[in-house]
Amino acid sequence: MEGKKIRVTVWNEFRHEKEMEAVKAIYPQGLHQCIGEALGKDAAFEVRLASLDEPENGLPQEVLDNTDVLFWWGHAHHQEVADETAKRVADRVLGGMGLIVLHSGHISKPFQRLLGTTGQLRWREDGTSTRIWAVNPAHPIVQGVGPYIDLAQEEMYSEPFLIPEPDELVFISWYKGGEVFRSGCVFRRGAGKIFYFQPGHETYPNYKNEQIQRVLINAAKYVAPTVQIQDVYGCPCVPSLEY
Amino acid sequence: MEGKKIRVTVWNEFRHEKEMEAVKAIYPQGLHQCIGEALGKDAAFEVRLASLDEPENGLPQEVLDNTDVLFWWGHAHHQEVADETAKRVADRVLGGMGLIVLHSGHISKPFQRLLGTTGQLRWREDGTSTRIWAVNPAHPIVQGVGPYIDLAQEEMYSEPFLIPEPDELVFISWYKGGEVFRSGCVFRRGAGKIFYFQPGHETYPNYKNEQIQRVLINAAKYVAPTVQIQDVYGCPCVPSLEY
Amino acid sequence: MEGKKIRVTVWNEFRHEKEMEAVKAIYPQGLHQCIGEALGKDAAFEVRLASLDEPENGLPQEVLDNTDVLFWWGHAHHQEVADETAKRVADRVLGGMGLIVLHSGHISKPFQRLLGTTGQLRWREDGTSTRIWAVNPAHPIVQGVGPYIDLAQEEMYSEPFLIPEPDELVFISWYKGGEVFRSGCVFRRGAGKIFYFQPGHETYPNYKNEQIQRVLINAAKYVAPTVQIQDVYGCPCVPSLEY
Amino acid sequence: MEGKKIRVTVWNEFRHEKEMEAVKAIYPQGLHQCIGEALGKDAAFEVRLASLDEPENGLPQEVLDNTDVLFWWGHAHHQEVADETAKRVADRVLGGMGLIVLHSGHISKPFQRLLGTTGQLRWREDGTSTRIWAVNPAHPIVQGVGPYIDLAQEEMYSEPFLIPEPDELVFISWYKGGEVFRSGCVFRRGAGKIFYFQPGHETYPNYKNEQIQRVLINAAKYVAPTVQIQDVYGCPCVPSLEY
Repeated sequence: MEGKKIRVTVWNEFRHEKEMEAVKAIYPQGLHQCIGEALGKDAAFEVRLASLDEPENGLPQEVLDNTDVLFWWGHAHHQEVADETAKRVADRVLGGMGLIVLHSGHISKPFQRLLGTTGQLRWREDGTSTRIWAVNPAHPIVQGVGPYIDLAQEEMYSEPFLIPEPDELVFISWYKGGEVFRSGCVFRRGAGKIFYFQPGHETYPNYKNEQIQRVLINAAKYVAPTVQIQDVYGCPCVPSLEY
Repeated sequence: MEGKKIRVTVWNEFRHEKEMEAVKAIYPQGLHQCIGEALGKDAAFEVRLASLDEPENGLPQEVLDNTDVLFWWGHAHHQEVADETAKRVADRVLGGMGLIVLHSGHISKPFQRLLGTTGQLRWREDGTSTRIWAVNPAHPIVQGVGPYIDLAQEEMYSEPFLIPEPDELVFISWYKGGEVFRSGCVFRRGAGKIFYFQPGHETYPNYKNEQIQRVLINAAKYVAPTVQIQDVYGCPCVPSLEY
Repeated sequence: MEGKKIRVTVWNEFRHEKEMEAVKAIYPQGLHQCIGEALGKDAAFEVRLASLDEPENGLPQEVLDNTDVLFWWGHAHHQEVADETAKRVADRVLGGMGLIVLHSGHISKPFQRLLGTTGQLRWREDGTSTRIWAVNPAHPIVQGVGPYIDLAQEEMYSEPFLIPEPDELVFISWYKGGEVFRSGCVFRRGAGKIFYFQPGHETYPNYKNEQIQRVLINAAKYVAPTVQIQDVYGCPCVPSLEY
Repeated sequence: MEGKKIRVTVWNEFRHEKEMEAVKAIYPQGLHQCIGEALGKDAAFEVRLASLDEPENGLPQEVLDNTDVLFWWGHAHHQEVADETAKRVADRVLGGMGLIVLHSGHISKPFQRLLGTTGQLRWREDGTSTRIWAVNPAHPIVQGVGPYIDLAQEEMYSEPFLIPEPDELVFISWYKGGEVFRSGCVFRRGAGKIFYFQPGHETYPNYKNEQIQRVLINAAKYVAPTVQIQDVYGCPCVPSLEY
């Protein structure tokens, strides 16, 4: 992929920003626009936006075929994402596309489908502060971030988090109320990599935070495909190679 | 679970044995009956059989609720398993039920659903011999089996095998034609454990092999539940514990 | 191992309890005695004690050969443990012996030797409170413990913790001061299992806590050997099996 | 590290090539020279050679401090490598240096020290053929290599291979005599990555094979450091951040 731009699509449910004044005030054009803008400052990326209410949930095959890394932010309308959309996304990930699942995406259809688990957790929305610790200072995703990220307010997500053991555990979050959470996890599935990252409740401006933006930029580079594989289903009958 | 029997259900597609003379000759009452009989010799187990053509694919909720370990053998009719059946099975695994997926079950609905991958592989049916190596002599599943199992004939399954990195790699198979395969893999998902085991093509009598039976017995004990969890979906809002 | 007792040896540096009044007041006969007593209440175990100042650091080959599970508590005198002792312990673990490394044992010779990492972390001794979260409610080590353990005072240990990615992450600790720590980790090495568990600073009575004792009992059962292997070094030249 | 050369040091025991005519005929200037030449064709690398009989085993601190990736080939004289050399190497790996351990290096001091296991395996030297399968076609190390590598002759290495579960399993080898082996394994330790690769017996010209060279080039890029960490031992006492 050297020399080529990483083609990023930032997908957003994009309802809260239209319906809730408090959210509109923070992300007037949608939080996908804020994320896209942050990525756009890095010359490595070519960014497009997509959202739930567009045809085919904004993610027709043609868009996915031209996406190297997909960001996914969904919250209250997971069930409105068509099963076919979730399948298209998951198949592309197995074929190489990177997927970055944000915040409430822990129970989104593509995430559940790719991991096979429910993403069950416990939560509380009380404006708690959080400190997000980088577990491994050498991981590419934490470069330039520092040992931790302090956020003045974030929704609380707590263990137990029903996911497979991550292939790489990147961040663990501390919450003032007494909880912990595996808030940054890499999963390798087929030719693709998935990064789950906890922050991003719609009522707090955390996607404007520079450290958070650094994580998103690093992560998009980290999950960008090594190779793209077309067929992830076929089980070919192969001749003996007569060793 | 001490003192209690492990309640095993052996599920079989159970079509080949009715339709193909060659298979009927080996497993006249179905290969699930052969497996069930082998397990039944061990006092630890209480065994029942189930098959595709029974109501609700033989696996209504009530059966699953009373199953500690489910064996799954399917081959040519994966699509006839209802999506609801696959979901019921997968949810029970997340809640604690052990699942042992045999042979062609690598593309069965419950296996794909629980792992999130397609189970893609390459294969050949030419009566090749195979040697199944125990990678870790200390793993509970290989106790009493010896360093490897030689099978005079088995269907060849070859890497690349599109699965997540197993939590525990137990067996790697060698095939005379020049291939290798991760033929024994443990995956932990939620409260449940899944064991995939390659041997068992319907035209070879490999479930009558004593070493194979030893693996099945060991595996059923290994994946038997530690605990049973009812709700694997709910994401409760929790109060602050005011630390 | 069924029907047989699990032979546990609890090893302690056993200096603080002799030299510091505050520690002596909590553990008058040594914290190994307290741990041993807790284990002794469970009929599964046969317990012996050992400590640094005994001949061969209390762990001659004969003791190790008759130990199924070794508990290790060391703090200020890691360098007084002979290299040969550390090698004997590590070799026995590779051969099957379970090892439970407590608290400051993160920089003990056997732990460093078996993991190949330094166990680097950050710490603070200010009497902070901690909450130890069970990450996976189905893990055998957390049965009967509940979702978390609250300790009124414990030494603070913080990420980044320089260890290999654990094979099984069991506990993550929260500290009032704002830190998190992977406080319960299982590593499989050869035929042996290692469990690291953070609590146990000598100036707090945390080994008297019933939940902590439950963890120690569960862990000792969990890491008890499946099999014992004599030779973990020899690389035999093997004849062709002329497949 | 962008724009900068990856500084590679290829270390070789370099005895066989001087003492055995058969080896000298294949690698007249040493197999490290052959590997170095292969790497040198790629502009990404700056290559230097080192060998056992040089002062400080060819790896004084200053050389290691200026090495991003170290290749290690040793066979018959592992015990002549000083313990201090092994420690220097291991500490640099924890601090970020990549390490590529070749062939008999499975029982070299740095490999054993970093993994904590013995590298035990079974072997045979009978000129068998081998087929090295890429388990994951998307792994950066296998790009441009194809689905497998056929070698007409190689020393046979067989499971069980006494190593920790690899963080990434890249290759599994098939041997004509009936054995299998996890022949390409990535381990992450501290800030460093380790890649073990089986081929390279001194009496076969396998480092001249273009596919093997492709693997070595890919691997050197893959294990090149993300970051370099100076102190991997210190456990600092840290103040409360008064959250």
